[in-house]
Amino acid sequence: MKRNSSRLSVDYSGEPLMSRIEVKVRFSEVDSIRVVWHGSYVRYMEDGREDFGEKYGLEYMTIFNNGYTAPMVDMNLRYLQSVTVGDTVIVETRYVPTKAAKIIFEYSIFRKSDNALVLTATTTQVFMSKSEGILELNNPPFYEEWKKRWGVE
Amino acid sequence: MKRNSSRLSVDYSGEPLMSRIEVKVRFSEVDSIRVVWHGSYVRYMEDGREDFGEKYGLEYMTIFNNGYTAPMVDMNLRYLQSVTVGDTVIVETRYVPTKAAKIIFEYSIFRKSDNALVLTATTTQVFMSKSEGILELNNPPFYEEWKKRWGVE
Amino acid sequence: MKRNSSRLSVDYSGEPLMSRIEVKVRFSEVDSIRVVWHGSYVRYMEDGREDFGEKYGLEYMTIFNNGYTAPMVDMNLRYLQSVTVGDTVIVETRYVPTKAAKIIFEYSIFRKSDNALVLTATTTQVFMSKSEGILELNNPPFYEEWKKRWGVE
Amino acid sequence: MKRNSSRLSVDYSGEPLMSRIEVKVRFSEVDSIRVVWHGSYVRYMEDGREDFGEKYGLEYMTIFNNGYTAPMVDMNLRYLQSVTVGDTVIVETRYVPTKAAKIIFEYSIFRKSDNALVLTATTTQVFMSKSEGILELNNPPFYEEWKKRWGVE
Repeated sequence: MKRNSSRLSVDYSGEPLMSRIEVKVRFSEVDSIRVVWHGSYVRYMEDGREDFGEKYGLEYMTIFNNGYTAPMVDMNLRYLQSVTVGDTVIVETRYVPTKAAKIIFEYSIFRKSDNALVLTATTTQVFMSKSEGILELNNPPFYEEWKKRWGVE
Repeated sequence: MKRNSSRLSVDYSGEPLMSRIEVKVRFSEVDSIRVVWHGSYVRYMEDGREDFGEKYGLEYMTIFNNGYTAPMVDMNLRYLQSVTVGDTVIVETRYVPTKAAKIIFEYSIFRKSDNALVLTATTTQVFMSKSEGILELNNPPFYEEWKKRWGVE
Repeated sequence: MKRNSSRLSVDYSGEPLMSRIEVKVRFSEVDSIRVVWHGSYVRYMEDGREDFGEKYGLEYMTIFNNGYTAPMVDMNLRYLQSVTVGDTVIVETRYVPTKAAKIIFEYSIFRKSDNALVLTATTTQVFMSKSEGILELNNPPFYEEWKKRWGVE
Repeated sequence: MKRNSSRLSVDYSGEPLMSRIEVKVRFSEVDSIRVVWHGSYVRYMEDGREDFGEKYGLEYMTIFNNGYTAPMVDMNLRYLQSVTVGDTVIVETRYVPTKAAKIIFEYSIFRKSDNALVLTATTTQVFMSKSEGILELNNPPFYEEWKKRWGVE
């Protein structure tokens, strides 16, 4: 089985793929009731995804240079607390294994000052070939390779 | 029963509360793969919600002037098609009845040129009193009044 | 002289090229001191420029389809008053004649409720050919044609 | 003279007040011609200003907690080069001494990869008292104190 052999070779032993990044709240991201506007979290999640990409070699540009884009098809956000000007948030981005031709991430965003969980979210992306502009029903070769490398489904 | 008596008086007969607004895609909302960035739809949904508010008297300022804010607690977006520079989208915002102390909306966003459905979404907001900054477990009086007026739960 | 003959033929008699568009302030464009964030005006100016483009045939897509982009090289904004949630602004965009290979616009933004002037601004764009990615020192043919058509320098 | 005595005490000897911060370009800040949208630089400048504020004790919240806001009244940007997805920019923010009741900053933004200067800009802010909502014609006491502390006009 790909996953197990891969896990043995890279010795990740089931440890989830995850990145953590700090993002300072911008003044312009706070709305008129002095909390971060709910839409701004979409950017923090993008920061988290890109940080994950840098750590594991799955940046936007890697996908693009392999001939694909990865449009968002599903995004769910649950807001638990608010953050404001001067706050810093910690974005945790976790890879969610799937057999489908998709990239699924889970996010937890924390307020740095007291470590309160302020948001949980998930995103699902699919693959489109740049040349043909059509949805890929199977994982692109580069992504299969990526999964093998990290021992994940 | 509140709802029925109200429905009789305003004669809405179960017709859903719904607004439609056109929004022209901004150049700055389109990303580097020449489609509207997935986060930009959060703004279109806000435009839809505010348009609904103007039509039915539930604007952000109405809520605010009654002593409340209505923070987002849940947001789900499903992307079906993409739109690009020069496109106009039509945002349909529908009120979803609930007995909970929440405001729930459903959205359908269409590409105007060919009427293709490009996004469906839901949002859930709760009420916070401005003075105390705490979550309201029951509907604020002004919102109960609003529901009666429009004959909805 | 191009300009005069053109002015005669289209009979614009020196009247400036100008468009006016209304833009409703978005909740997300207002910052934590409850006024429109200074950066949001850049979007209103873009709305004005695109409205001008639609009126006179100089949209972003027209420029693009002629093989060029028109990157911003200079932008100056002067803020006179503030606007807030619920306000609508009126964006006036005026073409500024120049012999240089540039597109120069002047903007006046008014608060609709009392017609107060809230911002004046200017922008300067140059032409880049898409294929070569280099600055054009002379006006592209389509733009020379456009100037003739409207009788402007 | 305030400035000199202050300069002696903090021993800054005329060295300009300046901060440098790195900002990673976000995917969502890049527009459809694959360069950073001209309006996104306004956010980078805000990042620079806030970084300056942290270094020298002039953050947005410091101003706010002293009873003032500092609205933008003038902003000028000159674009020299472009940056794209994957780039990091370096924002240099310099304090510009003035006797007027204003805060003036100069900015230089560099592309990190090759140190190319991509933008120069200036901003001017004034002081408004939160309680009265009126323009301050003289420097607020806290700002006079701040100037003394750093030995600047």
